[in-house]
Amino acid sequence: MVASAFLPELWTEILIPVCAVIGIAFSLFQWFIVSRVRVSADQGASSSSGGAKNGYEDSLIEEEEGVNDQSVVAKCAEIQTAISEGATSFLFTEYRYVGVFMVIFAGIIFVFLGSVEGFSTKNKPCTYDETKTCKPALATAAFSTIAFVLGAVTSVLSGFLGMKIATYANARTTLEARKGVGKAFIVAFRSGAVMGFLLAASGLLVLYITINVFKIYYGDDWEGLFEAITGYGLGGSSMALFGRVGGGIYTKAADVGADLVGKIERNIPEDDPRNPAVIADNVGDNVGDIAGMGSDLFGSYAEASCAALVVASISSFGINHDFTAMCYPLLISSMGILVCLITTLFATDFFEIKAVKEIEPALKNQLIISTVIMTVGIAVVSYVGLPSSFTIFNFGTQKVVQNWQLFLCVCVGLWAGLIIGFVTEYYTSNAYSPVQDVADSCRTGAATNVIFGLALGYKSVIIPIFAIAVSIFVSFSFAAMYGVAVAALGMLSTIATGLAIDAYGPISDNAGGIAEMAGMSHRIRERTDALDAAGNTTAAIGKGFAIGSAALVSLALFGAFVSRAGVHTVDVLTPKVIIGLLVGAMLPYWFSAMTMKSVGSAALKMVEEVRRQFNTIPGLMEGTAKPDYATCVKISTDASIKEMIPPGCLVMLTPLIVGFFFGVETLSGVLAGSLVSGVQIAISASNTGGAWDNAKKYIEAGVSEHAKSLGPKGSEPHKAAVIGDTIGDPLKDTSGPSLNILIKLMAVESLVFAPFFATHGGILFKYL
Amino acid sequence: MVASAFLPELWTEILIPVCAVIGIAFSLFQWFIVSRVRVSADQGASSSSGGAKNGYEDSLIEEEEGVNDQSVVAKCAEIQTAISEGATSFLFTEYRYVGVFMVIFAGIIFVFLGSVEGFSTKNKPCTYDETKTCKPALATAAFSTIAFVLGAVTSVLSGFLGMKIATYANARTTLEARKGVGKAFIVAFRSGAVMGFLLAASGLLVLYITINVFKIYYGDDWEGLFEAITGYGLGGSSMALFGRVGGGIYTKAADVGADLVGKIERNIPEDDPRNPAVIADNVGDNVGDIAGMGSDLFGSYAEASCAALVVASISSFGINHDFTAMCYPLLISSMGILVCLITTLFATDFFEIKAVKEIEPALKNQLIISTVIMTVGIAVVSYVGLPSSFTIFNFGTQKVVQNWQLFLCVCVGLWAGLIIGFVTEYYTSNAYSPVQDVADSCRTGAATNVIFGLALGYKSVIIPIFAIAVSIFVSFSFAAMYGVAVAALGMLSTIATGLAIDAYGPISDNAGGIAEMAGMSHRIRERTDALDAAGNTTAAIGKGFAIGSAALVSLALFGAFVSRAGVHTVDVLTPKVIIGLLVGAMLPYWFSAMTMKSVGSAALKMVEEVRRQFNTIPGLMEGTAKPDYATCVKISTDASIKEMIPPGCLVMLTPLIVGFFFGVETLSGVLAGSLVSGVQIAISASNTGGAWDNAKKYIEAGVSEHAKSLGPKGSEPHKAAVIGDTIGDPLKDTSGPSLNILIKLMAVESLVFAPFFATHGGILFKYL
Repeated sequence: MVASAFLPELWTEILIPVCAVIGIAFSLFQWFIVSRVRVSADQGASSSSGGAKNGYEDSLIEEEEGVNDQSVVAKCAEIQTAISEGATSFLFTEYRYVGVFMVIFAGIIFVFLGSVEGFSTKNKPCTYDETKTCKPALATAAFSTIAFVLGAVTSVLSGFLGMKIATYANARTTLEARKGVGKAFIVAFRSGAVMGFLLAASGLLVLYITINVFKIYYGDDWEGLFEAITGYGLGGSSMALFGRVGGGIYTKAADVGADLVGKIERNIPEDDPRNPAVIADNVGDNVGDIAGMGSDLFGSYAEASCAALVVASISSFGINHDFTAMCYPLLISSMGILVCLITTLFATDFFEIKAVKEIEPALKNQLIISTVIMTVGIAVVSYVGLPSSFTIFNFGTQKVVQNWQLFLCVCVGLWAGLIIGFVTEYYTSNAYSPVQDVADSCRTGAATNVIFGLALGYKSVIIPIFAIAVSIFVSFSFAAMYGVAVAALGMLSTIATGLAIDAYGPISDNAGGIAEMAGMSHRIRERTDALDAAGNTTAAIGKGFAIGSAALVSLALFGAFVSRAGVHTVDVLTPKVIIGLLVGAMLPYWFSAMTMKSVGSAALKMVEEVRRQFNTIPGLMEGTAKPDYATCVKISTDASIKEMIPPGCLVMLTPLIVGFFFGVETLSGVLAGSLVSGVQIAISASNTGGAWDNAKKYIEAGVSEHAKSLGPKGSEPHKAAVIGDTIGDPLKDTSGPSLNILIKLMAVESLVFAPFFATHGGILFKYL
Repeated sequence: MVASAFLPELWTEILIPVCAVIGIAFSLFQWFIVSRVRVSADQGASSSSGGAKNGYEDSLIEEEEGVNDQSVVAKCAEIQTAISEGATSFLFTEYRYVGVFMVIFAGIIFVFLGSVEGFSTKNKPCTYDETKTCKPALATAAFSTIAFVLGAVTSVLSGFLGMKIATYANARTTLEARKGVGKAFIVAFRSGAVMGFLLAASGLLVLYITINVFKIYYGDDWEGLFEAITGYGLGGSSMALFGRVGGGIYTKAADVGADLVGKIERNIPEDDPRNPAVIADNVGDNVGDIAGMGSDLFGSYAEASCAALVVASISSFGINHDFTAMCYPLLISSMGILVCLITTLFATDFFEIKAVKEIEPALKNQLIISTVIMTVGIAVVSYVGLPSSFTIFNFGTQKVVQNWQLFLCVCVGLWAGLIIGFVTEYYTSNAYSPVQDVADSCRTGAATNVIFGLALGYKSVIIPIFAIAVSIFVSFSFAAMYGVAVAALGMLSTIATGLAIDAYGPISDNAGGIAEMAGMSHRIRERTDALDAAGNTTAAIGKGFAIGSAALVSLALFGAFVSRAGVHTVDVLTPKVIIGLLVGAMLPYWFSAMTMKSVGSAALKMVEEVRRQFNTIPGLMEGTAKPDYATCVKISTDASIKEMIPPGCLVMLTPLIVGFFFGVETLSGVLAGSLVSGVQIAISASNTGGAWDNAKKYIEAGVSEHAKSLGPKGSEPHKAAVIGDTIGDPLKDTSGPSLNILIKLMAVESLVFAPFFATHGGILFKYL
């Protein structure tokens, strides 16, 4: 006896899009507020839109000392335009290449999946319930391909819009910094929120619409329907891969190249306009940390939803055609948008930041508030959106689950995310002893700095892994792979807030760069630096979330793959699985080797170009001549486009090759191996890099006696800290964050191709 | 119908000890030859033992220009004594602490294993064949404890004797370097051979005697007999853990500390006698790289043998009481001693080294020759030592295996070892492009050097992992866990040669140090540096072997554990296993964090002391006053003793805690996770460190145009290379090589305690 969910189907059909629309509206509203900060100097004189609140100029005069205001604004506008154009041009180049890949891969999906039943157009008995009739494999092939393209396009749009918002907000943040750190914070944070809500809401809306459109064809065949929907996750994640890797190489080649010559050889400050790589560096923040991360988290969200849906479709929800229960993952995301909306108001409206030291607590509070409110939200959704008792597919059997158990599954993921966030903060913020110890080790030079930093990264893995392990144990025990999938969704349910505080970081970083380049006063730079230091920590927290959720998501996808491929056990005590496990655990190393080497080589090219310009352009060091920014932008662009292909192929081809030649058992081993190994490297790489960056900032800021004893800028310990920071750049912004895509993407790809592997896979063992 | 082995039992009983005795005799003979190089100046005048070959002095006069010969010899003797005494004193201190641990742990083994049947003294039905009667668990407890102590003592002796030989040989190598690089090479290599043969032969002999003595009590109960023998492996490996970790921290604290002040701050060469940490540094090479590595490889050998024996005891060999077939692992090792003996003659007698560039090929040839001859040896042993067909226990069933299949299992391990050796050489020798690229990246500073070095280490993992995976697949498919165990033995069968070329490295390193400290001419130092550069590569190869064999050994032990604990599948798709896998994969990171931080902290203390001495001892920099070496030795000693405890506890307690509270399934996951994750970190850490070291040496040696453009010593690229070298020190000599002990030790410990866990384990899930 299995009851239906309390919430009627009609309400579900209405509530989900309404929440998504609210999210988009809120996002646009925040954008409107940000847009009221005027950047163009002449526009400020002609337009009257912001004129109502004319108190602005008064406080500006109070703050800024003796700088020609009009010219500063004009300069900021000019720099912003340069960054925005650079980013747009790079992303278009990237998308052109990625578009080719997308078309080819869409073809592969269609052909491979269509071949499962020899391109037959006849209906067939369903896989899990042979008494029913399901749509042919060819239909699944076609709809999977469509879903793949939709996911890819949404992912690309998410990244692109995020970049547009960020480059729209950075100069505005700089200008607001003249009025105080609180005002600047609000602008940066609101802009982050624009991106967060837009992404969360549009991801939900597109998925919702896709399901409903596909349903018109599939009708009662939910098994086929949600199998086709998994293409959405694959599309989202494969674009994220190229976004993260390409963007990551771009940003770090520029950053490392700029720092190596600028800071170390020429002794000029970061973001100095005389440095030819400075524009490329700032463009990089937007294409890597913003567009790449946006695509990444969108991918996680899409995959977690797909994993939950595909398992649900073969559980009692799908068998009984309970649409509300089926949409439980989407309802959680809808609730998440509302919760994050309230949470955002705490930062923007209910409280006000007045001093530098309030920034980090304000951001931390965002995490706590959203988690607490969301806990209530999940309870509501679980009560109205689920029957009190139901069954979940568990590798061949059906497991009876209560709604409160599923509530606990989602909660454990949500709270594990919070714990991961706090641990990340502890290990990467310079308010605590780990980063201070790393800074202290700079006394004895770069070598001890690196040794301590690596040790810190390794150590920072411990608690997050236990948190993930507990989440997995609880959710797996309660509700098998569906539990793991909704735990991942729980961790991602506050994605709008997570993205807001995450995107805030690169925006502040850019704001500082613009202040420096526009020649604004030292006090402005101090304020943006304070925003940026907090941003480093939130970026690390964001990466922690991304990795933690990726671990859960990929396990859920792995489970769904195994179910779909008809495997009931993945026994380590069989040769096929253990070699898969071993090779899978190696893949993150291979991938990291590629991406780090790419950054290193590209940075070397950048260094040569920057050195060439300093040596050949007369008056560059004196500031009388302008550097050739465009060549540096081109070097980063070319390098990232060229270098993203081999790691991309490694990730995309491995599941196909392993599945086709070695079969599903070995592929299962590979997925499990890359999951358990990759998550460790990803966390340690991100945190090591974050810690080095903030150790450097700790010495530069010199707020404590201890920090002063290590500084100032240019001292030997500071130089050692800069070396650590440079090494950390590719770790924290290229290889580390790309790894979570590696583990998710291989899993979702395996899931999409599962019917193909089950039919045609393992040819090597078949003929040996 | 299962036939017996061709070789009669009596012959087996004679052949094994005979081979072991031949090995020991050969080792003593090599020692005798080395001892003919006279170190003490006055002894040279009074003794007449080496007087017969008086041509020595003639060639010395040719080589050495204007240095007072007698005083140089006296100085070398003095330094050698200081190093030897420092090493002896440290090892005694270490053994005192480790002795306490040994007693406590022996007690734990006895109590835990005795409790399995409530300390009953009555015989019981056997576990695998319930129709037979086996000895009580209390007997297994008692004999396991004895075997544990025997293994521990043998391991300690192996390390200690290795250290004694190395400190006996280092000054002799320096003195021989005056006569030419070939003579010096022979002394260093012969000394390495002393250690290699002594260790391989004594390990075999003690194991053989133990089996025969235990058999007096156990009689026909081979199941119990070989279960008790596993204690031997546990004893060997637990001592190796402390040897590797303690020795590793000792040597790297001294090395890093000495380099940071000496090379970077004071601009004095490596091993300069003015550096207060120089004696501690040289002592460290002997206690870490020699004693620690000796214990480590002895542990691998003992564990691989135990894993094979315990599986064999429940296969047809044990069931039919076919003693020759049962002793197949020991026969392989016996054959290995003979093969290595012949191989050694190729380096010492058949050919002669005349130039620097012949050193690396000579060492490489040792690997190739031993592998080729051993292949024939294995064929012989497999033909005479095995029945043509037999059955092997395979997780509950018996699998039929042919003798040629077992031959292939051993061979695949042997040849995988060779491949790992060559790949390691490629990535760590400065004759090839990877290290040259890393050296080249020093142009742009330490940061790019570190980025390229890390990427190199990650990349170097790929081929070894495929080699290990193929070995596992072949051996596992042919003969289940027995196949994996004998594959590991195949890789370790040429251990005597492996150890000889491995120990050769630190001896050459020390020889260079002694030359520097004794103030010998630049030409001598160049020769020892050439020996040392080849030594860095062989050390990396040795670590590659150690890690590769550890992977196979720990899988075999894991399989034996699972069999003994009565588990038939380790399914990744169960919550208990997947969380074990995830947490297990994290343990190597936790362990590395501890050991690296330990080295870092100890190095900081060392730096402070060295700086203090330079600042407070007048005339130290000018060479008119002597530094206080003893204080630096004490800092290293205290730090390593204190810091080896937490990582030691992590490794030793994890299996006990997991097994007791979470049960055998989770423990299986932990073992598999730490295996697949640890092997990657271990390989990449060792190779990264080796590559940095040789990149530095490449710049210093300046043999090519490219290298000259980066040098000379003291140039900016060279400084960057020194930073990389310093970072690599703890990676390649502390955390990296300790990790293979981590994965083996947790597996063998689980195996020894398997009956306990099977009976009393998993209490957390029992009561939840």
